Formats: sequence, structure tokens, C-alpha cells
Amino acid sequence: MKGQCDLAIVGATGLVGESLIELLQESRTFPLGRLHLLAGPDRAGTRIEFRGGYLAVQELAGFDFSTVPLAIFATGSHVSAEFAPRAAAAGCVVIDTSACFRQDPQVPLVVAELNSGALAGHRRLFATPASVVTEALVALHPIVAAAGLERLEVTVLEPVSASGREAVEELAGQSAALLNGQPIETRVYPRQIAFNCLVSIDERDQSGYTKYEMQLRNEIRRVLGVAELPVQFTRVRVPVFHGETVALRVTTRKPLAAADARRLLEAAPGLQVPDEGVTPVEAVGQDDIYVNPPVADPDTPRTLFLWATADNIRRGMAGNALRLAELLVKEYL
Amino acid sequence: MKGQCDLAIVGATGLVGESLIELLQESRTFPLGRLHLLAGPDRAGTRIEFRGGYLAVQELAGFDFSTVPLAIFATGSHVSAEFAPRAAAAGCVVIDTSACFRQDPQVPLVVAELNSGALAGHRRLFATPASVVTEALVALHPIVAAAGLERLEVTVLEPVSASGREAVEELAGQSAALLNGQPIETRVYPRQIAFNCLVSIDERDQSGYTKYEMQLRNEIRRVLGVAELPVQFTRVRVPVFHGETVALRVTTRKPLAAADARRLLEAAPGLQVPDEGVTPVEAVGQDDIYVNPPVADPDTPRTLFLWATADNIRRGMAGNALRLAELLVKEYL
Repeated sequence: MKGQCDLAIVGATGLVGESLIELLQESRTFPLGRLHLLAGPDRAGTRIEFRGGYLAVQELAGFDFSTVPLAIFATGSHVSAEFAPRAAAAGCVVIDTSACFRQDPQVPLVVAELNSGALAGHRRLFATPASVVTEALVALHPIVAAAGLERLEVTVLEPVSASGREAVEELAGQSAALLNGQPIETRVYPRQIAFNCLVSIDERDQSGYTKYEMQLRNEIRRVLGVAELPVQFTRVRVPVFHGETVALRVTTRKPLAAADARRLLEAAPGLQVPDEGVTPVEAVGQDDIYVNPPVADPDTPRTLFLWATADNIRRGMAGNALRLAELLVKEYL
Repeated sequence: MKGQCDLAIVGATGLVGESLIELLQESRTFPLGRLHLLAGPDRAGTRIEFRGGYLAVQELAGFDFSTVPLAIFATGSHVSAEFAPRAAAAGCVVIDTSACFRQDPQVPLVVAELNSGALAGHRRLFATPASVVTEALVALHPIVAAAGLERLEVTVLEPVSASGREAVEELAGQSAALLNGQPIETRVYPRQIAFNCLVSIDERDQSGYTKYEMQLRNEIRRVLGVAELPVQFTRVRVPVFHGETVALRVTTRKPLAAADARRLLEAAPGLQVPDEGVTPVEAVGQDDIYVNPPVADPDTPRTLFLWATADNIRRGMAGNALRLAELLVKEYL
């Protein structure tokens, strides 16, 4: 497509939707024509400031997707399940950021820096992986490109914003209650999240891993296109609002010294490797992924250990979706 | 020793000291004679309720250690460095819970369930390891006893109470400030701890690991008595007050099915293996260590993955010290 492209953001009042609007405000790399903000009936009518004016949020159910070439769904899975295929059937190309289609082999699962070739081929529905998958794979990309990938262990410290706005409110509410000696309410999480950590507390399959951890493993395999890749995934939900940290233990195919891995990471666009490390809150609002200097496992051949930290909403979710939208407009629409 | 044993608790007003007093209140397994509570000059004179009466905290500097056969030091390293050798020289047997002597090859590093044989031999100074080391090794003991240990990866989610009362106050203060939109103060930790995670943020050695992580590795090797054991240790400080969770990835020498490992764990005294897992806050105030059902790594031979959760102060620190005190009184004093 040459010139400008109209865009619909579905779920415009959620955390990812807000972040998408913020990114569009700040940067002009997406050649935006008209912007349509869509949400459920309870949020329709909300006015959102945008580029010096105001846009009214429209109700999703009444929107005609044949009027826009491109939509980003930043909704829960149940909304995507109903409306994303409908939008695609109306001729709109859909980037869905929910978990709805991430396991569906018919729907390409795409990270802009890794497998954007999957955007080719006149499909109308694309999915983006969980934020941790994007963060982990973009951070590992220079290492994997240079030395290959034999196996991967991932431990993610997942902030509550990964579970949406209600989870953010639950952490704030429980924290305030506990600091004031009051009883807490539990709605989003199965246990107390304030001043606590939830380790693999979820429904498990026969292997003993949780279903969600097995899904994340599958997302990594799908993005990398390696069906049987050994991946172990551990999810720890921590009482952090925004900012996600992920521990990566990577065994490469060829040897790669830690110092050489560091040089590769430093040379990669979008990655930063500060000596002293970065904590989740320090990554909030940033577009880069911060990687700790990799260290070699002294006991296991070809194995490096590193941490990557990023703003899970802005970089992990909205950033990837918007990069894909830019690529679609530039190359395929 | 037959009959009762006088005991001094040094650092009686700290978190570990308080927990020791609580354990002595609740249980009569230690044959307590007179209890001496000691602290620095700013805390001396404090009155502490104990078994229906009150005990006055005495000033450490003026105490004559030749008058007690046994002392537990629950102090910071600098206090232990000065007073523990002095107490031992005066004829008192010392169990030091600080980090002061943990790396000293002349001082046995002891976990009651694992290497209490190290109490023999008329020594007067014993050290206990960091809480995470005790929790991890007691949790792993049934597996290691049955199938041996080839390598170990440990990731600890360390609560602020592991850094003492000031750190607990820092988390509470920062949390309240942030919830109220106020600026935070940072004293104990190098970065914001509230609603954040500190991953390997510490001074590093040439290997790239932090010095503290290398010390924890050495503590594990010392307690197990295996000098070259491959151990990788990762420390994550999390905004949790009390309760410590540790991820354990253990490669055994002999094969051991996950179901068999679970049966061994369930049969071990002091361990519980609830199906649904336990979070740090749920372990607070408990004497047992909670272990998640182990799962087999599908890609690595003889490798199990499990989590252990315990009250780091009560079980990890005070509990181990008091068990050692009981063993000393029973066998060696």
C-alpha cells in the first residue's frame, strides 16, 4: 500500500490498546490514515485524546470491518474468537494479540524481527505470541543466528499487567489492604498476589507442567519453526505492575563465548546490554529490550545464561503488533 | 548433657532472634534452663514476654559467655565476627546463623537433617547456611539419597525478610509511598524493591555470576561435602515480606521417575507435597517445607524439576539453628 492506511484498534481502552494509541501518538512510522477505536458497549462513547484532538470510542458490535484494511485486536480471547474471524471475512487483515489463535496451526504466529516472512501469502488473520515469547526470542536472536539453538530453558517473572487491567487493580487493592491490616479480595488470581509469588499455580496436564507453560513452549516452537525443540518453560507471577523479566538458559549448537555473545547482543538493534542490569520497573515505557551480560555455565558445554527485561505491554505486546502492522502496510496490503 | 541447658540468644530482637524465642515458646523439645537474651546497646533493656513472664534483653558487650554452655548468634556478620569467636574462647559452644563463617573451611557448616555428624569433635563454633540452602537441600534430600546428585540448578525467589528488619520496613514504606503517588526512599536495596524484582543485581566476579551466588554455590558444596559439584545459583529478590520459594532442577546419577520421587518426598518427615502447590505467604508460620510434585524434564535424562517453599526465617534460619542446638545438647555437650 502506498500512502496512508486506516486502522482499527479493537479493545482500545485496555492496557494493550492504550499502549498502541500511545505508540501511534509518539511515532509516525506507521502511515496512519483514519484511526477507529473500538470497544465493548460499556466503554463505547469514551473520548480519547489523540494528536491534538479527540476520538470517540465506537461500539465493536456495530462496526463494519469492510471499511478498514487493517485491524489490531487487543482484546481478551473470547472477544477475538467472536470478532476477529468476522473482521477477516469482511476483508480486513487482522493482527490478533490475544491467546485465541496462538495454538492454531492455520494462523501464523509472528514476531516482527523473527518470522515476518509469515506475513506473505494473502492471509487475513495473524496472531502475536505472549509478551514473554517475543521478548525472549528477540533477545536471543543474535545468539541463535550465530550459533544455533539446541535447547532452551525459560523462567518468566510475569507482572500483573500481563493479565489485564483488573489484575493491576487487584494487586493495588490487595497491597493497600494488607498494608492497612485489612482482609483482601481475590478475583483474578487463584491466590493472594500482593507480597506473594505464584509459581506454576495453574491447571496441569499429565506431564506435571501447567497447560499455560506448555502453550508458551509451543509458541516458541511455532515462531522458530522447530517442531520438536526442547524448551522448558516456567511461569512465576510476581507482584509487579509493569515490566517483565525472563531468565534464559540457552544451549547453542556451536560454541559461543560469553564475551562474543555479548558483542552480538550489543550490535543488535533494539537491544541494550548495560553492565549493571535493569530491573522491570526501569524498563517501563521503553522500546528496547535490556539484556544482562551473558554468563557461561561452567559445567555445561555451549550453554549461556542471561536475563532479558522489557516493558511487557509496550514492547512485548503493542510494539510487536505495530511493527507487524507497518510491515503489512509496506509490503503486503 | 542430661537435664536442662542454659542458652543465650544473641540478636534477640531481630527477625531470627524473635523466631527462635517463638519456637522455644511453642515447643519443649529443647531442654531449656535459663534463657539469656542479648542485643546491642540500643535494644538492651527491652522486655520480652516468655512463658508467662518477662525477660529483659541484656547488652551483648557486657555478657560473660563463660556462664552459658550454648549460644545461638542471630546477628549480622559484623557482630558475629567480633563476638562469636570471643564467646567460643570463653568456653561457650556457638551456632552462628550469620554469613560470617559460612565460607570458612575451619567452621563446619551444618544442616541438621544432612550433616549433623559435623557437630562431633569438640569444636566450639558452627555455622548455618543461608535459608535457601537449608530449604533446598532438605527438600532434595530424599531424591539425592535414593538416586545421587550429578548437578543442580537453583533459582531462589528471596523475600525481603532474608535481609533483615530494615528491608521489611523498606518494602512496606516503598509500597505505601508508591500506592499514594509519593517518591520512594532506597536504603537497604540498590534499586526500588516495591513492585519490582532484583535479578542478580549485586557485585559480580569475573565469571559474571554475583559474588553472593557463588557463595551460595559453595555453601551447597560444603554441606553436601562435594567440592566440585556442578551448581548454578540464581538469586532473585522479590517484593515478598516472608516466605521463600526455590526452583530446583536436579540431575541425578541414577534414573528416578517423577512419581517415585514424589513418593519419597511424601514419606520424608518435615516435607509436604500438596497437589496444588503452596505460595510463599501460605508457608509463613509453618515448620514444614512444601514441595511441588516433581516433574520430569522430557528432554534431559535423569532430570527432575520441582519447587520448594518454606518460611525462610522460622524454618530456614531459626528452625535449623534450634535443631542443631537440640542435637548438641543431646549428643555432645
